[in-house]
Amino acid sequence: MTGTAPQDLTRLSINQETLKQWSLPELAGGCAAAGIGSVGLWRAPVQEYGVERTARLMREHGLTVTSLCRGGFFTALDPQARARALDDNRAAIDEAAALGTGTLVLVSGGLPEGDRDIAAARERVADALAVLAPYAAERSVRLALEPLHPMYASDRCVISTLGQALDIAERFPAEQVGVVVDTYHLWWDDLAPAHTVRAGESGRIACFQLADWVTPLPEGVLLGRGQLGDGCIDLRGWRRRVDAAGYDGAVEVEIFNPALWARDGAEVLAEIAERYLRHVS
Amino acid sequence: MTGTAPQDLTRLSINQETLKQWSLPELAGGCAAAGIGSVGLWRAPVQEYGVERTARLMREHGLTVTSLCRGGFFTALDPQARARALDDNRAAIDEAAALGTGTLVLVSGGLPEGDRDIAAARERVADALAVLAPYAAERSVRLALEPLHPMYASDRCVISTLGQALDIAERFPAEQVGVVVDTYHLWWDDLAPAHTVRAGESGRIACFQLADWVTPLPEGVLLGRGQLGDGCIDLRGWRRRVDAAGYDGAVEVEIFNPALWARDGAEVLAEIAERYLRHVS
Repeated sequence: MTGTAPQDLTRLSINQETLKQWSLPELAGGCAAAGIGSVGLWRAPVQEYGVERTARLMREHGLTVTSLCRGGFFTALDPQARARALDDNRAAIDEAAALGTGTLVLVSGGLPEGDRDIAAARERVADALAVLAPYAAERSVRLALEPLHPMYASDRCVISTLGQALDIAERFPAEQVGVVVDTYHLWWDDLAPAHTVRAGESGRIACFQLADWVTPLPEGVLLGRGQLGDGCIDLRGWRRRVDAAGYDGAVEVEIFNPALWARDGAEVLAEIAERYLRHVS
Repeated sequence: MTGTAPQDLTRLSINQETLKQWSLPELAGGCAAAGIGSVGLWRAPVQEYGVERTARLMREHGLTVTSLCRGGFFTALDPQARARALDDNRAAIDEAAALGTGTLVLVSGGLPEGDRDIAAARERVADALAVLAPYAAERSVRLALEPLHPMYASDRCVISTLGQALDIAERFPAEQVGVVVDTYHLWWDDLAPAHTVRAGESGRIACFQLADWVTPLPEGVLLGRGQLGDGCIDLRGWRRRVDAAGYDGAVEVEIFNPALWARDGAEVLAEIAERYLRHVS
């Protein structure tokens, strides 16, 4: 650890959705001012601001884009809907390339209305990857399959565990398809540590994201993620685990929480940096 | 299938919590009138009505008690709290024996306030079983460890998968510690089918419970279980799976849903029977 400052924020990346109250210029300026060199971005605000304009903004502030969220939603049964999803994912890959990030996060999609065959839905995810992975690789973008917590399995993501994500990712070259390790989604799974080793050994940890687990969960269970240290996840244990698996990339904080969005962005960012040093690094 | 009527409700058991609007006498009378021969009971209403009085009521209506819910909550760190939990579980075992059921369902408990070591909490569950299993066996009661959906891992049950439940149950004789297979908790898990086979081979499926998965989840995620057929779980597939694993016991419907509680109990019971025939049996 020679050469690192005692208050080292080098690996810290701020996912844009954590500071939803900030515009892209505010995010870029705020992170630069706080000494944070990396951000994860989301497609909708980037499209609204302009993809090339966002890329320029990030460059001007010396910011690295660690990931783009998100492609995916591959599970439709209707052929036209599936074709639209593939087109949309090609656009997402182009956007990632334009932003200079090598990582496009994929949320697989849930079960179509009336469908009860989750195993078949997972296969449709693999089918879509087979189409998209070479397209992404040609643009130096890796697809990062994200397992979401099982409470999202029906309506958002049929890939619920790191094991399931790897079972699909490993059908493709590691430089084309990786996985996301997100503490919020995986903390409860006793098999996730072994799968983290497995993901590391094959060089597939494309993204490491952090949020803490707090209860009670809100209605719809989307916006209940906890600030680092507020919940029951051993965040430092997870950071050490991915490091031990050979990962040395960004540690991206992605918290969906209206209580954070209601506060001053700079104050929240300072709190995240402080929590990161206390609970993660 | 010779000897079974086309409208066979023989295996159907109604968990009391599904018809929370009914008193115990209403439940007993209602099930008997509907040709349903089995119920699962809960400790609080049984204690309120009287354990021996409940046992007599069930006998008078020719009803079998397929399970008692619930013991457990073994994860406290404080020694006094742990001792109190063991005492309470001995009482639950006595109650199960008095009701004539061989199955006490156990919900393991969540993480104590401020605790972040879920692996250690799971070991405390195993420690409690080591104390309680012989006591239960002497009273012809089997402890049935229930994996709850991972969304309850922090505040209710650190055992989230059938694999985790079996890893602990298998440290004890099969006649002392079994597992609960509940579709609501396990449907999303690609490893659960193989673990169902594993549970069946060792004769550990102590209880099979059904509810359907519907979204959006309500705040607190406790009372959002779906009526059979309203959600995305392949319920018949699961019934066939436990049968193929060698289970031939009750199929217990356990739905926590305020919309069902707000309706006439007999009407809900008739609907459950109809849904059971259409989606399960």
